[in-house]
Amino acid sequence: MLLDVLPRLRAMRLVLASGSPRRIEMLRGAGLDFLEVIPSCFAETLEKAAFASAAAYALATARGKADEVLARLEAAEAAEAASSRAGAEADAAALAPPRSPLVVIACDTVVEAPNGEILEKPRDRADAARMLRMLSGMPHRVHSGVVLLGRGRAVIESFTQTTMVEFAALPESLVLAHSASDEDLDKAGAYAIQGRAASFVARVDGDASSVIGLPLQRVCAALRALALAPAPSLAPAIAPAL
Amino acid sequence: MLLDVLPRLRAMRLVLASGSPRRIEMLRGAGLDFLEVIPSCFAETLEKAAFASAAAYALATARGKADEVLARLEAAEAAEAASSRAGAEADAAALAPPRSPLVVIACDTVVEAPNGEILEKPRDRADAARMLRMLSGMPHRVHSGVVLLGRGRAVIESFTQTTMVEFAALPESLVLAHSASDEDLDKAGAYAIQGRAASFVARVDGDASSVIGLPLQRVCAALRALALAPAPSLAPAIAPAL
Repeated sequence: MLLDVLPRLRAMRLVLASGSPRRIEMLRGAGLDFLEVIPSCFAETLEKAAFASAAAYALATARGKADEVLARLEAAEAAEAASSRAGAEADAAALAPPRSPLVVIACDTVVEAPNGEILEKPRDRADAARMLRMLSGMPHRVHSGVVLLGRGRAVIESFTQTTMVEFAALPESLVLAHSASDEDLDKAGAYAIQGRAASFVARVDGDASSVIGLPLQRVCAALRALALAPAPSLAPAIAPAL
Repeated sequence: MLLDVLPRLRAMRLVLASGSPRRIEMLRGAGLDFLEVIPSCFAETLEKAAFASAAAYALATARGKADEVLARLEAAEAAEAASSRAGAEADAAALAPPRSPLVVIACDTVVEAPNGEILEKPRDRADAARMLRMLSGMPHRVHSGVVLLGRGRAVIESFTQTTMVEFAALPESLVLAHSASDEDLDKAGAYAIQGRAASFVARVDGDASSVIGLPLQRVCAALRALALAPAPSLAPAIAPAL
């Protein structure tokens, strides 16, 4: 969705607030080879009961990640500007127009079991096996929350995307072998669709990319709109902070 | 679907009749790190009008690929056996029981435009642009044909899988930029879902893996059944040749 607007996007500073290899690969694959990667330090410990839905929880976590990375970037920019002002030779830089537009892209994905439980990273192998048994042979939902923030916490884009994923029936010996392999002990719902568990998936209905990494088409559509918008829309005032 | 049966599968010779990097990656990712890769030389020139559907065409092409690779492998085995018999020191080998089971996995994927046209590789940039305009903003179908063959052309598995893929509306400037990039001139339908065109896909309904490479869950389920079947089912006579 970006090939014809890449020259405009290259004039911006695009930052992905995630170290997920698959998210990086998807965005770079869409043409954003200049994407910066600054993984968020946001503690993903929001109180789930405080949210009306699993999707709302994912969106709030994405917002927390974006805020945290943006705050670090803006602090670094402020320090740099102060340092420039301190140097006599850098007076011109202090008077220069605002730097290139900045966009922080954050995403969070949660797995909702058929019984409504939000599945996080399993505590141990037994917990991983329990999660896989819940998902076996049943459709479940994967929710992604995405937030794109500009300077001053301007919300460029904010949305949730829900995709249905249906696992094949998993024989108990397979559940035990997979949970014992420790491969997905660090994954929400004890599976990563791009790993061995890809072969569990009989059907997807919705945005398949958001299950793998992030909702690629919608993120790219938002970046496309940004690239084609008149310059003022990149200013901090385009949208109120959430 | 395979983690608990990998020891049994390792006793077999599994051959993928395709050089597609994504197919290789998916199957190896499912645990088949011992998979052999022998790309088919089958000329994909079957007469489309002779088939009742795009899916039937894909299945026949997959069968052609499997037959071609199997024939080469069996010829090589026969030559090796003859060579062994010729050597006096190798008499024991000639009397040895049949070698390990052999499974050739072949797949073909075709893109069916909304108007029913089977899209092949575009002839040139203009043809690529024409195909992208046909797919823009519309759902289309992707058909995969899969054939698993054993020695003697025994059909271990044979099926088709159809998945709906919906593109976002593609602005004309994007269509022109994508077709001019030559990235997908060698892809059926002028797009590869794992490349830049991944960002065109707003929705998938069905087996997402078959759009990327091959119907991973069903291929793995077939291999799983084979691994768990009593040994005789691996003999050439398990199913009549198509």
